[in-house]
Amino acid sequence: MEQGSFAQIPMQFVGPLRVSGIQLEGEYEVPLATYEIPLWPSVNRGARVSMNCEGGIKCTVVDDRMTRSVLFEAPDATAAFLALEKIKAGLPILEKVVEGTSRFAKLININAQIAGNLLFVRFEFTTGDASGHNMCTQAAEALMNHILGNHPELEYGSISGNYCSDKKATAVNGILGRGKYVVAELLIPGKIVRRYLKTTPAKVVQLNIRKNLIGTMLAGGSRSANAHFANMLLGFYLATGQDAANIVEGSQGMTLAEERDGDLYFSVTLPNLIMGTVGNGKGLDFVLDNMRRMGLDEERAPGENSKRLACLCAATVLCGELSLLAAQTNPGELMDAHRRIERGQQK
Amino acid sequence: MEQGSFAQIPMQFVGPLRVSGIQLEGEYEVPLATYEIPLWPSVNRGARVSMNCEGGIKCTVVDDRMTRSVLFEAPDATAAFLALEKIKAGLPILEKVVEGTSRFAKLININAQIAGNLLFVRFEFTTGDASGHNMCTQAAEALMNHILGNHPELEYGSISGNYCSDKKATAVNGILGRGKYVVAELLIPGKIVRRYLKTTPAKVVQLNIRKNLIGTMLAGGSRSANAHFANMLLGFYLATGQDAANIVEGSQGMTLAEERDGDLYFSVTLPNLIMGTVGNGKGLDFVLDNMRRMGLDEERAPGENSKRLACLCAATVLCGELSLLAAQTNPGELMDAHRRIERGQQK
Amino acid sequence: MEQGSFAQIPMQFVGPLRVSGIQLEGEYEVPLATYEIPLWPSVNRGARVSMNCEGGIKCTVVDDRMTRSVLFEAPDATAAFLALEKIKAGLPILEKVVEGTSRFAKLININAQIAGNLLFVRFEFTTGDASGHNMCTQAAEALMNHILGNHPELEYGSISGNYCSDKKATAVNGILGRGKYVVAELLIPGKIVRRYLKTTPAKVVQLNIRKNLIGTMLAGGSRSANAHFANMLLGFYLATGQDAANIVEGSQGMTLAEERDGDLYFSVTLPNLIMGTVGNGKGLDFVLDNMRRMGLDEERAPGENSKRLACLCAATVLCGELSLLAAQTNPGELMDAHRRIERGQQK
Amino acid sequence: MEQGSFAQIPMQFVGPLRVSGIQLEGEYEVPLATYEIPLWPSVNRGARVSMNCEGGIKCTVVDDRMTRSVLFEAPDATAAFLALEKIKAGLPILEKVVEGTSRFAKLININAQIAGNLLFVRFEFTTGDASGHNMCTQAAEALMNHILGNHPELEYGSISGNYCSDKKATAVNGILGRGKYVVAELLIPGKIVRRYLKTTPAKVVQLNIRKNLIGTMLAGGSRSANAHFANMLLGFYLATGQDAANIVEGSQGMTLAEERDGDLYFSVTLPNLIMGTVGNGKGLDFVLDNMRRMGLDEERAPGENSKRLACLCAATVLCGELSLLAAQTNPGELMDAHRRIERGQQK
Repeated sequence: MEQGSFAQIPMQFVGPLRVSGIQLEGEYEVPLATYEIPLWPSVNRGARVSMNCEGGIKCTVVDDRMTRSVLFEAPDATAAFLALEKIKAGLPILEKVVEGTSRFAKLININAQIAGNLLFVRFEFTTGDASGHNMCTQAAEALMNHILGNHPELEYGSISGNYCSDKKATAVNGILGRGKYVVAELLIPGKIVRRYLKTTPAKVVQLNIRKNLIGTMLAGGSRSANAHFANMLLGFYLATGQDAANIVEGSQGMTLAEERDGDLYFSVTLPNLIMGTVGNGKGLDFVLDNMRRMGLDEERAPGENSKRLACLCAATVLCGELSLLAAQTNPGELMDAHRRIERGQQK
Repeated sequence: MEQGSFAQIPMQFVGPLRVSGIQLEGEYEVPLATYEIPLWPSVNRGARVSMNCEGGIKCTVVDDRMTRSVLFEAPDATAAFLALEKIKAGLPILEKVVEGTSRFAKLININAQIAGNLLFVRFEFTTGDASGHNMCTQAAEALMNHILGNHPELEYGSISGNYCSDKKATAVNGILGRGKYVVAELLIPGKIVRRYLKTTPAKVVQLNIRKNLIGTMLAGGSRSANAHFANMLLGFYLATGQDAANIVEGSQGMTLAEERDGDLYFSVTLPNLIMGTVGNGKGLDFVLDNMRRMGLDEERAPGENSKRLACLCAATVLCGELSLLAAQTNPGELMDAHRRIERGQQK
Repeated sequence: MEQGSFAQIPMQFVGPLRVSGIQLEGEYEVPLATYEIPLWPSVNRGARVSMNCEGGIKCTVVDDRMTRSVLFEAPDATAAFLALEKIKAGLPILEKVVEGTSRFAKLININAQIAGNLLFVRFEFTTGDASGHNMCTQAAEALMNHILGNHPELEYGSISGNYCSDKKATAVNGILGRGKYVVAELLIPGKIVRRYLKTTPAKVVQLNIRKNLIGTMLAGGSRSANAHFANMLLGFYLATGQDAANIVEGSQGMTLAEERDGDLYFSVTLPNLIMGTVGNGKGLDFVLDNMRRMGLDEERAPGENSKRLACLCAATVLCGELSLLAAQTNPGELMDAHRRIERGQQK
Repeated sequence: MEQGSFAQIPMQFVGPLRVSGIQLEGEYEVPLATYEIPLWPSVNRGARVSMNCEGGIKCTVVDDRMTRSVLFEAPDATAAFLALEKIKAGLPILEKVVEGTSRFAKLININAQIAGNLLFVRFEFTTGDASGHNMCTQAAEALMNHILGNHPELEYGSISGNYCSDKKATAVNGILGRGKYVVAELLIPGKIVRRYLKTTPAKVVQLNIRKNLIGTMLAGGSRSANAHFANMLLGFYLATGQDAANIVEGSQGMTLAEERDGDLYFSVTLPNLIMGTVGNGKGLDFVLDNMRRMGLDEERAPGENSKRLACLCAATVLCGELSLLAAQTNPGELMDAHRRIERGQQK
């Protein structure tokens, strides 16, 4: 292993896009780092639409937690069940254990699965403004040690039992929660849809049903009713110093569209945005610059900056998703756009 | 939207790791770009193990194809069914249509789903050394136009119907194939397991069953029996100019481990490595350098370089997966390693 | 184990319902055996609707096959890959092997998965009028023996490797096919929707999107965008001597609804109807009676009777699905119906 | 629709099998109704094994609840979120609402999902000795009415939003709980494995990993790591008056096997046994007889009889699963058994 350098990923700010909601209100430009340069004009088109809609993109943070599941081995299922009952009953003590590991980590809930004699315990934490991978692992380690100390009948199985579930396509994260759960919504007047997106509300609605809902279902998809959340997430995560491997679960979200009195209601639901404003990657100069430009370098209550970040991320996803779906309603448009944008830039 | 710059992702070469197989043979260093710096020593530990195993990591390319599913609307299911029968019967003509769109794209198979009156047709192509997203979209567009011209009863639904399935967690890609399907295997003498990985074959085997197979199954996982494929994939994809949003399906793979006469058989199966040596991102200087250092800048038959690249990627995934699983067999080791590596590097 | 008796499941014929399509045309009554007696009036309501729609329920048999996946152990993935290449190349010989095992079984396709050194080969057969479980197992056994005889490097793993996949909730059956793949469709005039179903096309369409598509997706559903296919399938399977454990995969299907010029287009897509008119259970007197009453006791080309049966089954599913969805569009209606029907019949 | 009759499903008692655990202890015969007659000797073989193991099959009831998810439409996600916060805060009042609907139904928990402006609320109840479908629907109706009365901003969406999830293959039931969650375990001496099952512990363990865990994962399976749970569930459900359409989620369970000092640890985990001793189907004479023979007609605390029933069901599943897996370790055995048993019984 030798001294390192840097992979230089092309990055641009797009926007401004207009957002509103409990967490933040106003016009923002957002950075996207990607090799897929047609992403910029695509997201930008959606951003322009948002600027022409009253109130812009409304963002709601539904939930916020980070998890780690540990694995114990019990002599049998009855022992696992009895231990679990005691573990749950001792939640206040476990909360204290976690407090001893970090200023920011708080234990908020426990879920579990028993399979044969195996006991998977999924701890849920809030982690302030950090995405919280390490904070949770550290807390989980302390919890395991505490529990093993009080349950001689249990044995260490694993500090992570994959019921967490980190960077894997699973259902558990969407159902029990992991990361910031954000919904971004936009009500677009019909004439704006026609002018900026060259399509109609009805066409977008129909395509969303057929492609994102039906098509994904046929593909055996796992909570992934969207066209390309992963593209925007990758660009945004890289540009803001996030662990972009978390786009795996981040991409498991849903696009909904409805016609409302001739206008287009369009929303993206992202239950698993694992991201923060502090931690690994956040100290790099360009990340600090990007955070500053989005106003996320200010002092706020713990967790507030990362929620704002997640809102901006969800709004960005909405812009890109809207633009691509609109393009796909028109035969030939997608490929034309790619050809136009990439001409001269690639061999 | 303004002029762009670059996101600078820390990058290092790790290794060398030893590989063998039909595609390539020898010792290679591989680049990983990531904000998660403990990834480097972790993969490096696995690489060291590979250097101490006879033959090193054996890589097998089981399959190679890229896909795009289009969506037609038919008057009813019978019409969709009859159209599909004709489309399939006309495969040789469709092959010609595709040949007209690119030097490299070849249509190799068709799959389809009918839901109500909707017809999803999934075209499978080989795409030379490109990952092939655009090549497939272009070919699919030509195929749609051809089919619509011959089937007045069908209407355009979408150039992409999500039965492809791009950058979403689905089952279809693993089952029907999308990307390079690579298996990497390593037979590790028991004493090497103990010396370099500080564990035993039995412990790794047991953890893999409990965590990767059982834990993922409990989590409602979708073909994702692994600990952290996504981490290595992200690092490798970014360092080699790949569209890293494809780690979503790339992460859907399986780790298997068995004890064999006191030694450890360890394998990773990655059915959906969507990657290439030409196309978007491949012209950047650091990417060219990295490709050159892995010997992938040489002239070879179309598709050969990208298969080699996929083998090196799979071998890298194996190294990181092995190292993390080994660490998790020992209470406390994972967190200790993180603390040791990150101390002084983060606030 | 002692001498047996019979579980007496309440059974009624419902209908007539009107069907059309390539396989059959006309009015049919269909039998349903169930403990859940509100099912009869519910399906009956849908049947009445079908009688008031021009052409009735149009049924399309999209596919018909039965499968068994066997498991081989190879020395490594390369050996598995090379063996698979040879197995596929020898398809004509394998077809002969299967012909020797049964008058009806025909091998029509092979799919495979390689995971590490394991080779799962999924054989696809047509099986005449039998659902084909045993016929496939017998054919698969002969195929395994043949292959093991020609591949000394392979070892027996299992006669069934769960990649088949029988009576389990998986994605493979919908994607690769298993059982009869039937779509049933009905175009219902708006006034019929209002008169018989006490609702509107728009309400049914909206509920189907929100409940069957979105709700199922949120639940981490596996290709199961429907309200209660399983209820009708259970009743129909029991009444016609089918192995009703196959409702597990049978229930994995999709309901689609669209408004068309004020009318309601309503369809059910059932890709995995594993059923037949001969085999276990078909010789019981009441089953023979039921088959006769549906006209399925006549001599027809192999496979024709079972396809007709599958069409009637799909049409029955449509009736029950339509009726329940309609009821759920109206607050209070579902529970009222249950209370009304069950009053006096239960304690 | 005409007067009904009965589908006569062949039924036999098998066993005795030996069980132990918190709920019940002793030897029991269990009834199975099925068209697939090889099921009886297969389960019986497993039962014989249980009689030769100390303590027999240990059953643990990990959880017991029944659910119904309702769907509300909110103006937007923020409104949905704020309403949900209030609904959760008012849990004690909601508990009262439920108490008014039934002597037995108790509201024990609430989960929710927000997608766009849609709010899915999943109510969890205990339902005494009933499986609880109707009890939950009735309670959910009252809850909806109460909530709609207090939240004029919400509109009725559906009494069931498929996030429940009833009779569909989903992940939510396993993760959040629905039905009785039972683990059945058996420790089988190596010599008993060899004598009664004609195989070895090592072979069963290996087959379970490769077939049930790996094979199912490759098939895109949804929490269904088993060979044929559905067969035993169907037979047991029909014989005890259960709504057998619930075998869909019932079949989503896991078989685990481990070698322990030369003996075989074998367990089945069934998180979704939706069954009861009262309600639809339970008043039929043969069902009353069957319940009586299993000692489930005695007066016990609410819920106790149905838990015992679930334990006997899980133990029966274990017997059949063990027997089939053992058979599949030996080439040719499965087909031989089918041929031997079915000869002379079928045409």
